[in-house]
Amino acid sequence: METTPQPPAATVGGDGLEEVVFDVFARGCPSRPTMEHVTGRWGGLVLVALADGDMRFNALRRRVDGISEKMLAQALHALERDGLVVREVRRTIPPNVEYRLTSFGRGVVERLSALIEFIEGNMAEVLAAQEAYDAAKAASQD
Amino acid sequence: METTPQPPAATVGGDGLEEVVFDVFARGCPSRPTMEHVTGRWGGLVLVALADGDMRFNALRRRVDGISEKMLAQALHALERDGLVVREVRRTIPPNVEYRLTSFGRGVVERLSALIEFIEGNMAEVLAAQEAYDAAKAASQD
Repeated sequence: METTPQPPAATVGGDGLEEVVFDVFARGCPSRPTMEHVTGRWGGLVLVALADGDMRFNALRRRVDGISEKMLAQALHALERDGLVVREVRRTIPPNVEYRLTSFGRGVVERLSALIEFIEGNMAEVLAAQEAYDAAKAASQD
Repeated sequence: METTPQPPAATVGGDGLEEVVFDVFARGCPSRPTMEHVTGRWGGLVLVALADGDMRFNALRRRVDGISEKMLAQALHALERDGLVVREVRRTIPPNVEYRLTSFGRGVVERLSALIEFIEGNMAEVLAAQEAYDAAKAASQD
């Protein structure tokens, strides 16, 4: 049985006050795209890079190894629109554009960093699991 | 200036012991695909769904609203290969296949859930930021 498409956010509570519940499991919930921007291929790395301090576009590009100019611009727009990052134009000569985390962005990065550090710290286990999985698969195909 | 491609994992330490450092910022580091499986469009939702208890394929499909059969199968393979999820065949009649988190998977879900709850709890702020961003953009195009 398929669940029916959900409204953008479910409205509950019958006391005259509207209470909105966000749920990443619901197909149409706006929290899902935000979660994807934060954890997508590049968005998360850009956020974590900005935790070290405000950065210009080119510095970010060097820090996030492998990102293209276009992908970085797209990631920054999505993060800015979600209120995670602010684009700050400093009226120097020549003008200087820097990106910095908002306080909401800092809260997200704190939790995202905990996840990244846990994964990095367990990569030996991951590599062993991958080896065992591939060996079992190869054996079953003999 | 572009950084040069990195080896899969940097080897440091000069005491005869090999110490491997994993870094999601390095292009070739194997922690990057694992991070992507955990936080990708579907992998994260599958992991968090399994935190509620072991589940069969069809129950997972219902829980993760909008996922296709093919996408769920792909997500489960990637999570199993990384050692986050175990596929368990119970020798009942008919045989019963369930998916469950490993202890590493539970550690990942704990941190991922903290991130999801923080985002869900701040969605009102996100929606306001999006509205302001779109209004500013529309005004600049007038």
